[in-house]
Amino acid sequence: MKKIYFITSNKGKVLEAQNKFSTINIDIVQKNFGYPEIQAEKLEDVAVFGVKYLQDRINEPFILEDAGLFIDVLNGFPGVYSSYVYHTLGCEGVLLLMKDFNESKRDATFRSVFAYKEPKSKPLFFVGECDGKISTELLGDNGFGYDPIFIPHGSNRTFAQMKTDEKNSFSHRGKSLDKLINNFGKNITI
Amino acid sequence: MKKIYFITSNKGKVLEAQNKFSTINIDIVQKNFGYPEIQAEKLEDVAVFGVKYLQDRINEPFILEDAGLFIDVLNGFPGVYSSYVYHTLGCEGVLLLMKDFNESKRDATFRSVFAYKEPKSKPLFFVGECDGKISTELLGDNGFGYDPIFIPHGSNRTFAQMKTDEKNSFSHRGKSLDKLINNFGKNITI
Repeated sequence: MKKIYFITSNKGKVLEAQNKFSTINIDIVQKNFGYPEIQAEKLEDVAVFGVKYLQDRINEPFILEDAGLFIDVLNGFPGVYSSYVYHTLGCEGVLLLMKDFNESKRDATFRSVFAYKEPKSKPLFFVGECDGKISTELLGDNGFGYDPIFIPHGSNRTFAQMKTDEKNSFSHRGKSLDKLINNFGKNITI
Repeated sequence: MKKIYFITSNKGKVLEAQNKFSTINIDIVQKNFGYPEIQAEKLEDVAVFGVKYLQDRINEPFILEDAGLFIDVLNGFPGVYSSYVYHTLGCEGVLLLMKDFNESKRDATFRSVFAYKEPKSKPLFFVGECDGKISTELLGDNGFGYDPIFIPHGSNRTFAQMKTDEKNSFSHRGKSLDKLINNFGKNITI
């Protein structure tokens, strides 16, 4: 079976990718290699820099991913720094920042960018997005991160109120992974 | 006159450094070279990565600096990401996050880290700090960034209510620069 390294410390992301890639008979192997993530406004810039750093060090096909929650009325905050903000302010901090905005001003987007790189080829990038709204309170116990305050369009419940399958049907990461997989047999040869 | 490159896009920082370095007969020359700033919890890590990136590209003595505002009760937020947070949430966003904390819980620290690197020597790092409190409202028109909401210990006014000389007597950047300059003739030869 062909294999692709997934450069990440996040086991949950690996499982999600393995699940998708198994349908096309490709093995996703986690490599907790570590690479510098730069400060930038766009996830794409973080991914491009990561690929450049890793391509001199890994001589096998690999993927990496960066994701974030972008809130319109907060100029995209927490965006690329979603993980840092989650660990310092938490969902409660984000709700506080949103407290004076009514439903019409609570639009937000979860974004995921996958990079795929194989030796001697240019990297390819795949973006997945999930539009939705920030809830007015913490709702639900499932999931992680900002799941308790994000209600995707097409639902009236937060990600944390959904079972995994339902959440994945909306998921930004599911969409970017689908795009990546659909590209095999087109741009990508392994 | 000996010269040192200051790798920064910030003219204000350059002027502050030129002012200090003129006392020891060293010319500070701005070089808007650009280098990747990584996502990290500590300013020191950002500076270390910057030096590693630049040392292969610049064969002259150079300095760089990173700075941030660390608020105790917000787990150090906005910290290394102070510039990004300023441009997305602004001082108003920080005040909102602090609204339920009384004076005893408004401690914060401005930090500055300078790196000095000359060819064939290990980099040296100099930290300057200014402890203070976050005000409960925007006060003053001078300065920039978080100056209108930061009251340094030893004063009852914000940086933005002070003239430049008074602010500089407290300044984190002034302190890290003083340490750097005091080191000339000890660790550093030019």
